[in-house]
Amino acid sequence: MNTFGRIFRISIFGESHGKWVGVTIDGCPAGIALREEDLAPDLDRRKAGAAGTTPRKEDDMPIFVSGLFNNKTTGAPLTIVFENNNVRSADYDAIKATPRPGHADFVLDKKFNGFNDHRGGGHSSGRLTVALVAAGSVAKKILNGITVSATLTEAGGNTDIEAAINKAIADQDSIGGIVSCTVAGLPVGLGEPFFDSVESVISHAVFSIPAIKGVEFGSGFAAARMAGSTHNDAIINEHGATGTNNAGGINGGITNGNDLHFRVAVKPTSSTPREQQTWNKNTQSVEPFTVKGRHDLCIALRVPVVVEAVTAIALADLWLLHA
Amino acid sequence: MNTFGRIFRISIFGESHGKWVGVTIDGCPAGIALREEDLAPDLDRRKAGAAGTTPRKEDDMPIFVSGLFNNKTTGAPLTIVFENNNVRSADYDAIKATPRPGHADFVLDKKFNGFNDHRGGGHSSGRLTVALVAAGSVAKKILNGITVSATLTEAGGNTDIEAAINKAIADQDSIGGIVSCTVAGLPVGLGEPFFDSVESVISHAVFSIPAIKGVEFGSGFAAARMAGSTHNDAIINEHGATGTNNAGGINGGITNGNDLHFRVAVKPTSSTPREQQTWNKNTQSVEPFTVKGRHDLCIALRVPVVVEAVTAIALADLWLLHA
Amino acid sequence: MNTFGRIFRISIFGESHGKWVGVTIDGCPAGIALREEDLAPDLDRRKAGAAGTTPRKEDDMPIFVSGLFNNKTTGAPLTIVFENNNVRSADYDAIKATPRPGHADFVLDKKFNGFNDHRGGGHSSGRLTVALVAAGSVAKKILNGITVSATLTEAGGNTDIEAAINKAIADQDSIGGIVSCTVAGLPVGLGEPFFDSVESVISHAVFSIPAIKGVEFGSGFAAARMAGSTHNDAIINEHGATGTNNAGGINGGITNGNDLHFRVAVKPTSSTPREQQTWNKNTQSVEPFTVKGRHDLCIALRVPVVVEAVTAIALADLWLLHA
Amino acid sequence: MNTFGRIFRISIFGESHGKWVGVTIDGCPAGIALREEDLAPDLDRRKAGAAGTTPRKEDDMPIFVSGLFNNKTTGAPLTIVFENNNVRSADYDAIKATPRPGHADFVLDKKFNGFNDHRGGGHSSGRLTVALVAAGSVAKKILNGITVSATLTEAGGNTDIEAAINKAIADQDSIGGIVSCTVAGLPVGLGEPFFDSVESVISHAVFSIPAIKGVEFGSGFAAARMAGSTHNDAIINEHGATGTNNAGGINGGITNGNDLHFRVAVKPTSSTPREQQTWNKNTQSVEPFTVKGRHDLCIALRVPVVVEAVTAIALADLWLLHA
Repeated sequence: MNTFGRIFRISIFGESHGKWVGVTIDGCPAGIALREEDLAPDLDRRKAGAAGTTPRKEDDMPIFVSGLFNNKTTGAPLTIVFENNNVRSADYDAIKATPRPGHADFVLDKKFNGFNDHRGGGHSSGRLTVALVAAGSVAKKILNGITVSATLTEAGGNTDIEAAINKAIADQDSIGGIVSCTVAGLPVGLGEPFFDSVESVISHAVFSIPAIKGVEFGSGFAAARMAGSTHNDAIINEHGATGTNNAGGINGGITNGNDLHFRVAVKPTSSTPREQQTWNKNTQSVEPFTVKGRHDLCIALRVPVVVEAVTAIALADLWLLHA
Repeated sequence: MNTFGRIFRISIFGESHGKWVGVTIDGCPAGIALREEDLAPDLDRRKAGAAGTTPRKEDDMPIFVSGLFNNKTTGAPLTIVFENNNVRSADYDAIKATPRPGHADFVLDKKFNGFNDHRGGGHSSGRLTVALVAAGSVAKKILNGITVSATLTEAGGNTDIEAAINKAIADQDSIGGIVSCTVAGLPVGLGEPFFDSVESVISHAVFSIPAIKGVEFGSGFAAARMAGSTHNDAIINEHGATGTNNAGGINGGITNGNDLHFRVAVKPTSSTPREQQTWNKNTQSVEPFTVKGRHDLCIALRVPVVVEAVTAIALADLWLLHA
Repeated sequence: MNTFGRIFRISIFGESHGKWVGVTIDGCPAGIALREEDLAPDLDRRKAGAAGTTPRKEDDMPIFVSGLFNNKTTGAPLTIVFENNNVRSADYDAIKATPRPGHADFVLDKKFNGFNDHRGGGHSSGRLTVALVAAGSVAKKILNGITVSATLTEAGGNTDIEAAINKAIADQDSIGGIVSCTVAGLPVGLGEPFFDSVESVISHAVFSIPAIKGVEFGSGFAAARMAGSTHNDAIINEHGATGTNNAGGINGGITNGNDLHFRVAVKPTSSTPREQQTWNKNTQSVEPFTVKGRHDLCIALRVPVVVEAVTAIALADLWLLHA
Repeated sequence: MNTFGRIFRISIFGESHGKWVGVTIDGCPAGIALREEDLAPDLDRRKAGAAGTTPRKEDDMPIFVSGLFNNKTTGAPLTIVFENNNVRSADYDAIKATPRPGHADFVLDKKFNGFNDHRGGGHSSGRLTVALVAAGSVAKKILNGITVSATLTEAGGNTDIEAAINKAIADQDSIGGIVSCTVAGLPVGLGEPFFDSVESVISHAVFSIPAIKGVEFGSGFAAARMAGSTHNDAIINEHGATGTNNAGGINGGITNGNDLHFRVAVKPTSSTPREQQTWNKNTQSVEPFTVKGRHDLCIALRVPVVVEAVTAIALADLWLLHA
């Protein structure tokens, strides 16, 4: 489904080349101050514009459809939509015959018996992340005293990200990256021992973001190579503070009051300028393929704010359950 | 909550030192042949016994409580319980004062205001995975024609696992490992573009297993360092077969008909024999700490069958939704 | 929450005097033909205009926001909105001080700490039923071969409904009514024995409609006075047809293949033209009260199509689960 | 599914003639005092024994499987089971050929392709209500300061219930009844305007009880014949107290702080001693039929405590969401 959360529940809708994309937040508490401009900082961070990002630019002005009255949330479903006003659908007609490698074109066509809106990836487009970011900004307001911050720490295997982008432009090939996210100020006790472990809930949210292929908490994969005596974080005071933080702020699926920390692997943008191979349905043969449309060379540049958004959404749900 | 799945829904209950641990499967189709002995192979794989595993041994004989008639599932809730008959609770009394590093003792005490059953980790114990494994064996029967296989590919950073265990025994320190899981035979089309992406659903399930700290699909974290032209898997026939499988069998959150592949990081067992440090509530100071009870030196040895189980459970749900 | 259904899941949003009201259907199968005009018959039935209905008239032209491509559903979330273009908010300012008897004004103010949009009932308004009716029209398309039909069989205690309305107009007092609903063509086997019994699911949906205060299936309350030998429906052929239908087409919570039948009690419109009493927050005393705004004298006239809608929505969910 | 509730979530399992029936409560807060004997009063009220009830008697001694430690709930899933120790399965062999009128035999056989446990109704048996009653007793402990009380106000159309039972015994025909339920002490604000209206949630729960065919809140069906000026309840003080209570304590789906009141129609026990007609699968003809097994002549006698239980369960969920 296109819904996430149990009591702070968000639902997204829309397509890349449709009229609007949007989000409904059901279960948003009443009385939260909210104006269009409150969403601007996060929406701006998500926007294209930097080197390595798509030339498609949207205004991304949020339209509050419901759930807001006198600039305060009402407790009723909060629906926010964004117009799609910079759409060039003709670019996508070839998708039907030659599914783009790395994209969902082939699987969407099969899954929906050809009825899916294929233009620009349709509902599966990264365009939908504008709705996630808007919901994330609202979630952050609920997480009073808690800060969620994600940054791109590596692109194309290089921690000098500007250099990485310049190389990608020179190579005319897309690259991926690593996003690191830290949440400070969480109380002890969010999450459950098994199915709703904090790792389960956050990874569920984070893998909702297109292009994410790995998530690790605390020392993550490196922990698999550590000895227990090194990995265990000694508890050093009555509040549960630990000397090290290999656990990434989570023990047994539950927040332990230390910083929550995780890292995310972003694959290279599927739409690379380089020539590739794909199956041509019409000719029934493998053929060279060059992507059309406007795309990001390094989508990872735009991912941190989306990681923050879905993390805030996931934690707002756990927080409201806990409160 | 302690429930996972939408239409093949499992719920677990029980504590390490309680009477029984068990699982209820709601939404299991009627007419599936099932006998106690069908569960034995997976339960045996999960059991202790090898070098590096705990001396606590349970018979792990499943008791079918409901949902089975004439050795076939009835369509009613299928409840399976296991007795806990090898319990030494006195080992755990010290936990209340000195929470074990790396364990959930501290957070459970806070979250449940001290009312949690702390013996052996209570409900948060790895003992509960016997219920997951039982449910997984049932799920595998639903996934007709689909094979789920997980193996430990690395322990303590060493691909020679026997050597790794011997070193851990010699060092008297616990170690972690990497579990690799492959699912063959999946149709195209399981999963959803965003919140119920296959990655979201499987990672949610996998992070339910105690000690898991990372999950990566396909090339995973390595993808973050690859160029798009290398990472993209060329589609080579009408069924969507790809030449490479960097995507791990998933595009845009949806299975693409190729093998599903992911890897899991297992942290070292929290209960290492080495002396550690923790906070002593009684003395209000940090003190040396040595773990009591019987434990696995390398819990990762017993994790593969649990990874298979939760993966099968997650896929059975997607499969029944898709069918 | 404002969501109903498990796999055909609808979410509503909007307020009486807001910009738009709307609905998102998540889980709508791909490939269903759908045009604006397909919704017109049901939307027209819901509209005001007859004697006894409100002078507020809306165009109720559906705007398809997402999930539709080339006039077919795509499998992505289907969002439909309606403009509110005939709004007179000034009528409602007094509500804050003097909550209207029979309305939710008082409880909404308390529940949402005064932050609710009180204009015209805000999100709690019957205006939202336009979204239910739209979703119902889509649900009916899924229920291929199944007909859902509801009619007003009684108003103000009179089966001559025209006479009842004329009397209400003459009395200048609002009236209620009884809606009878029949579903033909259902297969045997929808529903579950306990919590998702057909009665549970349909009553849940039907009590979502404002002003509904009773639901009875088959012989309903009359069954409480019948002998078992009279009430039981004899099975008369291999398909499970019964000679009588006191069960209303449901045995043990599950459809039995006979017509599903239930009746619904609609209370009189809360906004009666007669003078009433209510608490005045400002004066802190009980005072005479006369309702402002434009209202239906017999809202029950407009309820049948809404009952059909929510019934179709509930059954579409059970149907897709069953298929 | 066999699950009810969002954060106080109960799941039932078991069959009439199986080993155990039981319930798991997930989301039960930690620290609630609970002993076997606390469940006894409600379990006793549900038991057979009075004139008009089945000769099958169970000890109904609750076994706490999990979630309880030192006689307090732990916050982990609370599982309670009951042995079935008075089972005579041979009585039921004829069901396969001649489905009992008024029972679910026919629909269960179809729905589950003949794999259902048909003995004594299997999972669909009223025996499962012992699990509901146990969960209800726990729910009542959560509803601190709130009282839920249901009584049988009418049997076989007679308010003198003893006389009604005597007549049913004399007639050797089963009868139904009306159960009236009142909840006192509720705060203002439980419930939601549409899909989770208090009426929706309670009716959902109540129609989970076998044999219930109607539910009405406040004046219910009588409201359909009242004028608005009579039906509306005048608000008479700042707490929202109303002079009358035609609304049954609910406005716009939300509790208004006055007593919650509803009535429930219980059909006559399907297993009447009288000869009936049903389809015989073997002979392919309609034939006279006489019920086997031990049954209640007036199951309505045992329903009030079950109505209380599911109402308490439903309200505990809304209460914990609200708190």
